[in-house]
Amino acid sequence: MLPEPSAPREDRYEAPEVVVARLPQYVRILSRLQQEGAQVVSSQQLGEKLQVTPAQIRKDLSYFGRFGKQGRGYSVTHLLGRLKQILGLNSYWNVAVVGVGRLGRAILSYPGFSPDGFRLVAAFDENPEVVGQEVAGLEVLPMIRLNQEVRERNIAIAIVAVPTDHTQQVVDRLVECGVRAMLNYAPITPQVTESVKIRNIDPVLSLQSMTYYLTDGFEG
Amino acid sequence: MLPEPSAPREDRYEAPEVVVARLPQYVRILSRLQQEGAQVVSSQQLGEKLQVTPAQIRKDLSYFGRFGKQGRGYSVTHLLGRLKQILGLNSYWNVAVVGVGRLGRAILSYPGFSPDGFRLVAAFDENPEVVGQEVAGLEVLPMIRLNQEVRERNIAIAIVAVPTDHTQQVVDRLVECGVRAMLNYAPITPQVTESVKIRNIDPVLSLQSMTYYLTDGFEG
Repeated sequence: MLPEPSAPREDRYEAPEVVVARLPQYVRILSRLQQEGAQVVSSQQLGEKLQVTPAQIRKDLSYFGRFGKQGRGYSVTHLLGRLKQILGLNSYWNVAVVGVGRLGRAILSYPGFSPDGFRLVAAFDENPEVVGQEVAGLEVLPMIRLNQEVRERNIAIAIVAVPTDHTQQVVDRLVECGVRAMLNYAPITPQVTESVKIRNIDPVLSLQSMTYYLTDGFEG
Repeated sequence: MLPEPSAPREDRYEAPEVVVARLPQYVRILSRLQQEGAQVVSSQQLGEKLQVTPAQIRKDLSYFGRFGKQGRGYSVTHLLGRLKQILGLNSYWNVAVVGVGRLGRAILSYPGFSPDGFRLVAAFDENPEVVGQEVAGLEVLPMIRLNQEVRERNIAIAIVAVPTDHTQQVVDRLVECGVRAMLNYAPITPQVTESVKIRNIDPVLSLQSMTYYLTDGFEG
């Protein structure tokens, strides 16, 4: 017998991207609550931690099924389990890092990926002086090995840490090799087809979104 | 005569945080258009680049005044100038980096802050072996110098790149010293009072927001 589908596929894509982007924060908060021994959490409590309204919490979760009973809160273990399943976090994802400069090295040495479902399994660079070096236990491979490694190691995700003027080209190359999700550290928004997901880590944009609150709006 | 206020102060805070967070992307896109010699841009074009609807563009901008005329698009130079003014990007912001480990060094060496209005003017660490080192042209200072430097160098913003278990303590210390905006690289959400702004750079959350689209939702 086939397992009962957890949610009809056509429903999944109704959740707006902004809601999906919040789900990992739910997972993080619920994991901490579980570690602390909490059994139940209210939308009020979740809202405080996420800095959104309890109504927004209930609306967010309603895209993915029925959780909790009116006035009784959510079961921490059940909600956490379902959200991890929805986000595909029940197993590991193999990740490649492309670009092993200063930033790439910091990324490869960051201990935070593996406890949260991501294994950095390959590192690539086009600089012949960098290729062959060992960084954080990985041998840096030449770009020409990309296609083969992506296939053999089942790499669905790449972290791109190359200079800005190489970024689009590297992203295109990764898409050709079948990589379907990318995290880009260059300060541009690479263009990709709709079936490929990309997120940009951009500290400048984050800083600029705060200066608004530091000004009085009258200068200039 | 006093200059005419560009917008009444009470209006400024009606803009939702999610809209404010998009403004830096408008600035980046408009800057590029200006460099390319474009004079006018439509909400349609802006929408395509930002991947939101033209209606959302018009709504976003309506929080900050009247821009452009129906059917004639926006003046690139005028809109860019106003948005930079609204975001406080007409002058430099002095920024301190706290934590000079691998990540802190990558941040201090990143060339992208200065062209976009942020000057990294001080670096701090509590490790005596790191204090006194020169990194990217700055001498690393001990944490005890924080208060004095923040005041003397008019530092309103800090980038926090310290280990997770030190983050809240460092954030508290920065708030005490009068720092009003922070960019945090540890995978936690530090608690701050409402008058302080904080943004978290969290590659794991970004990765987890993409795996949703890589799964079929039936596993587990």
